[in-house]
Amino acid sequence: MDIISMGQKAAAAKYMLQKTASEQKNKALLEAAEALCSSEEEILTANRADIAQGEANGMHMGMLDRLRLNHERIEAMADGLRQIALLEDPVNKVLETFERPNGLYIEKRRVPMGVIGIIYESRPNVTADAFGLCFKAGNAVILKGGSDAIHSNQAITSVLRKVVGKCGITEDCVQLITDTDRSVTNAFMKMNEYVDVLIPRGGAGLIRAVVENSTVPVIETGTGNCHIYVDKDADITMAIPIICNAKTQRIGVCNACESLVVHEDMRQGLLPALAMKLSEYNVEIRGDEQTREILTDVIPATPEDYGTEYLDYILSIKTVKSVEDAIDHINQYNTKHSDCIITDNMENAEKFLNEIDAACVYVNASTRFTDGFEFGFGAEIGISTQKLHARGPMGLNELTSYKYTIKGYGQIRP
Amino acid sequence: MDIISMGQKAAAAKYMLQKTASEQKNKALLEAAEALCSSEEEILTANRADIAQGEANGMHMGMLDRLRLNHERIEAMADGLRQIALLEDPVNKVLETFERPNGLYIEKRRVPMGVIGIIYESRPNVTADAFGLCFKAGNAVILKGGSDAIHSNQAITSVLRKVVGKCGITEDCVQLITDTDRSVTNAFMKMNEYVDVLIPRGGAGLIRAVVENSTVPVIETGTGNCHIYVDKDADITMAIPIICNAKTQRIGVCNACESLVVHEDMRQGLLPALAMKLSEYNVEIRGDEQTREILTDVIPATPEDYGTEYLDYILSIKTVKSVEDAIDHINQYNTKHSDCIITDNMENAEKFLNEIDAACVYVNASTRFTDGFEFGFGAEIGISTQKLHARGPMGLNELTSYKYTIKGYGQIRP
Repeated sequence: MDIISMGQKAAAAKYMLQKTASEQKNKALLEAAEALCSSEEEILTANRADIAQGEANGMHMGMLDRLRLNHERIEAMADGLRQIALLEDPVNKVLETFERPNGLYIEKRRVPMGVIGIIYESRPNVTADAFGLCFKAGNAVILKGGSDAIHSNQAITSVLRKVVGKCGITEDCVQLITDTDRSVTNAFMKMNEYVDVLIPRGGAGLIRAVVENSTVPVIETGTGNCHIYVDKDADITMAIPIICNAKTQRIGVCNACESLVVHEDMRQGLLPALAMKLSEYNVEIRGDEQTREILTDVIPATPEDYGTEYLDYILSIKTVKSVEDAIDHINQYNTKHSDCIITDNMENAEKFLNEIDAACVYVNASTRFTDGFEFGFGAEIGISTQKLHARGPMGLNELTSYKYTIKGYGQIRP
Repeated sequence: MDIISMGQKAAAAKYMLQKTASEQKNKALLEAAEALCSSEEEILTANRADIAQGEANGMHMGMLDRLRLNHERIEAMADGLRQIALLEDPVNKVLETFERPNGLYIEKRRVPMGVIGIIYESRPNVTADAFGLCFKAGNAVILKGGSDAIHSNQAITSVLRKVVGKCGITEDCVQLITDTDRSVTNAFMKMNEYVDVLIPRGGAGLIRAVVENSTVPVIETGTGNCHIYVDKDADITMAIPIICNAKTQRIGVCNACESLVVHEDMRQGLLPALAMKLSEYNVEIRGDEQTREILTDVIPATPEDYGTEYLDYILSIKTVKSVEDAIDHINQYNTKHSDCIITDNMENAEKFLNEIDAACVYVNASTRFTDGFEFGFGAEIGISTQKLHARGPMGLNELTSYKYTIKGYGQIRP
């Protein structure tokens, strides 16, 4: 099927979906969860075809792991849909009401975005996950997964479509682009007439490609060059566990810490003890000259290091003379994702919270908490690193827009 | 000066501006208003150069009128800045707070966007207006006005920069791109590193060009193919004044009515009386077959008519059999701006409010009220017709983003 027809079908589906009651959407989500479980064998068969192809193409272990499905992962997808069914429906929630002096009564209420496009890489679980969130927020979704996962994605989408259709909502609420030709993806990114927003989920390269080629509005997600700054008045016994957690608890994620900024007076107290702790995880340290005065055997850090999201057991260290210097350094190198100050000085904490330009700014806590579940949103479609529309963890609310409804009794403009 | 340096200066200015207190911003706005008035002669001299060039290039009357400044228009610009000074500062307003079971205290608060780019056409008053709104919301602004108005824009920007500098805030808060080469505008639209959002203000052609060429996030504004639907149970004595107001009170604006949708049972009661009233304004009517059964001498309407924002004394008419048909027709042809139902049937009114996909949906009032001032926002940078970030009239709040600040006492992620 060509991409324009898919856009038209999605646009038609969005009108049906925005009228669909929460109960009906929840029922469909719960049935979809059941159907994923009962279709385990078909899904795993399809997944085995993707894995075989990946192995034949020499795909590396990490990628193969992301691609692979098994009983637990299918159960987890189903559980994800069940959890989404339990969340409050954001659609039609009244955000504000006001009456004008001329008697017009204005209400601002949440409405679905309409049609959301998701462009992602090789994790097949994104297929169910993105569908669930978009669907609950009243949106039709067009999915474009990585070609590596095409059989798995087709199998999952087919299950979802059948359930949604059976529940009396059109199955065009969820469509998968199966044509892997690049020209099709390019056309998808320019379907402003049918697609209201595109959300890329994946690595920096994918996100850059979508931002550069799309004329449809995009929500940038993901890249996280997160910093922790240890201030002059920091409690070192608090600092070390936070840094270790943020660096090592999970390395391949956008809210992991990539760079440490240290007040020069804290070097002696912090760095040797920290280096010892990090060596337990085999973390490689790359430091500036002042760092290397204390940690004499670490690799020198280049300016490029400060701009790198390692996603690995590597930590860069920069020494500064003040909280102001720390803020300037971080604002220069961060990706506007998550940054943290460790301090007992409330004035410096407030300064840092106010002046760091990032979606999430922390005092005395691990950056790993930047996450829709940890924030209590009950779900997450991604972490926005742009300032338009949504910033930080995006849950169901962030998948909606709003409209104004205005009630009058004959008012005309003088 | 090259565009990259302008981006860097704006990015540096944004950090200063986001720390600037409301009082200081308001003082600068009031002084800028005074300075515009006291620089009237320089501004008018510059404007005369633009007008002379426009006349020499054969610019048409309407364009010349938009370009022309005079004492009253400069006073109006100054008044605009004074009004913005009176508005509540949106920056740092706390939108939400929540505490997580692990003790993390999360606050969501408004912050400036950062750097806003405005691309506009030949109205020089946009220069002061856009500066005032962006500045009050804590944003640095880079302006790219039409080359027709270059002397006027330079004169106005020069006044604004001097005042802002004198008030102890960097003058780089407001910069004007003076190089009229298209390659510069193209580079401006791809400065994702320095510009957080672009807002085009002008005709459909300008907006399309920005959407198609920009990699910086864009807020689409402006195009309004607005509909009024007269339902079966409408009060005709209410319908006629609303339609006349929405069509004729000001024709060249995005919230003017361009198309009338009529329930077939209302044709006989409504159309002859309406046509008589509209003939007082020399409004040309283009109708479908069912309309022309009643108004036998009107021009036939083509599907293209239904998709046209005339911005002129022209009204298309479409007949429908039901409110459902009206909703389908409007959702097919509208530009998601403003649409209205005239009815005494509350069930149909609710259906219309729920199902029309537009920024502003009216019951029994003129579409001309879609306006930041009419909504009570005290200002307006434009009317968004997209769903991402802002929809409908955009005031100061819509020129901000938000951030999360998270306070802990050593929490790490298990």
